[in-house]
Amino acid sequence: MSTNRQIRLKSRPPGMPTTDNFDAVDAPMPALSDGDVLRRTIYLSLDPYMRGRMSDAPSYAAPVQIGQVMCGHTVSEVVESKNPAFRNGDIVTGYDGWQQFAASNGKELRKLDPKAAPIATAISVLGMPGMTAFVGLMDIGQPKPGETVVVSAASGAVGSVVGQLAKVKGCRAVGIAGSDEKCRYIVEELGFDASINYKMGGDLVAGLHAVCPKGIDIYFENVGGPVFSAVMRNLANGARIPLCGLISEYNTAAQDGPNLRPLLVHRAMIRGFIVSDHMDRAAAFQAECAPLVRDGKIKYRHDIVDGLDSAPNALIGLFEGKNFGKMIVKISKDPTIG
Amino acid sequence: MSTNRQIRLKSRPPGMPTTDNFDAVDAPMPALSDGDVLRRTIYLSLDPYMRGRMSDAPSYAAPVQIGQVMCGHTVSEVVESKNPAFRNGDIVTGYDGWQQFAASNGKELRKLDPKAAPIATAISVLGMPGMTAFVGLMDIGQPKPGETVVVSAASGAVGSVVGQLAKVKGCRAVGIAGSDEKCRYIVEELGFDASINYKMGGDLVAGLHAVCPKGIDIYFENVGGPVFSAVMRNLANGARIPLCGLISEYNTAAQDGPNLRPLLVHRAMIRGFIVSDHMDRAAAFQAECAPLVRDGKIKYRHDIVDGLDSAPNALIGLFEGKNFGKMIVKISKDPTIG
Repeated sequence: MSTNRQIRLKSRPPGMPTTDNFDAVDAPMPALSDGDVLRRTIYLSLDPYMRGRMSDAPSYAAPVQIGQVMCGHTVSEVVESKNPAFRNGDIVTGYDGWQQFAASNGKELRKLDPKAAPIATAISVLGMPGMTAFVGLMDIGQPKPGETVVVSAASGAVGSVVGQLAKVKGCRAVGIAGSDEKCRYIVEELGFDASINYKMGGDLVAGLHAVCPKGIDIYFENVGGPVFSAVMRNLANGARIPLCGLISEYNTAAQDGPNLRPLLVHRAMIRGFIVSDHMDRAAAFQAECAPLVRDGKIKYRHDIVDGLDSAPNALIGLFEGKNFGKMIVKISKDPTIG
Repeated sequence: MSTNRQIRLKSRPPGMPTTDNFDAVDAPMPALSDGDVLRRTIYLSLDPYMRGRMSDAPSYAAPVQIGQVMCGHTVSEVVESKNPAFRNGDIVTGYDGWQQFAASNGKELRKLDPKAAPIATAISVLGMPGMTAFVGLMDIGQPKPGETVVVSAASGAVGSVVGQLAKVKGCRAVGIAGSDEKCRYIVEELGFDASINYKMGGDLVAGLHAVCPKGIDIYFENVGGPVFSAVMRNLANGARIPLCGLISEYNTAAQDGPNLRPLLVHRAMIRGFIVSDHMDRAAAFQAECAPLVRDGKIKYRHDIVDGLDSAPNALIGLFEGKNFGKMIVKISKDPTIG
């Protein structure tokens, strides 16, 4: 192949992104200097944080510049190496973004063992989304056996791990999701104790009370908006709220949040966190969660779309809740599966 | 005196309390059983939390019942004792409420030493308001030298201690208050580094940025509403927000809170707390703050109104920000001052 197809940021969306915000370009193949390693992208992870990178509003990370390749976690195969630490055929995970090929000195890459777990898990349950669940639930939530843990976007890459890890820790796990199918999945497949479809209509405050009669001890927050407000009215005393994301608000101007009186009445806590601040916990995460995944105690589901050019619509679908499981773009053949 | 004047809760206010919500009654003097101690109220503390007790909405403490004497912290003199632990003339602090006399077995009373500090400080800077400042700032805020601490209701009973204690800890202290006079007071008398009059009009977000150019590390929250929202847009990374009160919202139906995206962007934390959960810190509070008050490193100001019948209007004034310093009702002569 003589070109490197890339998807670049063309313009900044004021609200919900559209395909017009992206440009597909056939760029030249990257040139390799001594010490560099060239890899072919196999899987690209699509994640809610990408909406923030498309905006130039101040945030915790620099935005993608107009004309730059969109950022993203990837799983790749080494196809050419001028670096003795890598050889052709190595499977690596990195942050190569929305493109078919990438080259660098490889310092930021982590080699994967295809025998240990399917390689795509390095960008899902055993990658950044899984570690986000681990840090938020364990370090901020600090679950105790018997407590009630509620998670929003519960069938997604992060939420599904939160609920299953809560079960491992002896908690009651309740998931909020956006379809009856997702709700069935998290209870029947993932073993959550209960679920609520927030789109079903009706009174979400009362619905949460029915499945969390003793109140919510931990709320792992991914969505914001009316779901957050309904949870706030069901807190238990001493509740902890790891604030991981506010996906329902990413495509609108800043809006008011929930009434905060319940924090006072229930001596509750909200703490925002960004997983990249907690990389010192990566080894503990792998040590605890890799065996749970291997033994089927933490299950996962990948929602895989084919081809780099599918990425813009797939990302838009993520903000509409259309995905079912971890959103992944398959960019080239996975050599580890038949 | 043969009667005990009391102010009782007559009805629950839907919004701002009015004098019609209270009943002044001349009740019989309390009868003393063996082991009881009778005291005459000298000072009654008026505090924002009382609005919550006038309502029967679920909260962290039971409401005052209709027809019950309004609750409140008091400083009193023992006038008759059938309890060997107390004798006439002892000065005690307790929770006797809005009445001239009270009797009980005295278990909940704490004796004061009038030589150690003016006795009214037992319901202000060395009482519940001071301890609220101590617990919120030290245990939840965890100030580090050089950090910027912002407090709302900064000239009040709690806020004034927060800012002065922050200075003792080597922080920059910025106060938000509701008049130029209060703003001058906290800077010129109390030694805050800067102040903002939130009623001055203009852009509070920009005003806060001007006096907190490196962002706000700790925000001690007493008020809620637009002040809270403006602070949220000026957070430093890793900010801590001890949530002590939301006085601007106590007389309205639950309304939306600030947009919470800054918690995520700045990895910030809000924690609601109630001082009565932290009584294990009372000794540490007295050990640290009593010397600071004695040495003038923590100053205080009492806004004293005369006579029990003044209490309803004084409480209403508290919600309107009319008080300047700790709101106290003087119910009878203080025998320790001339």
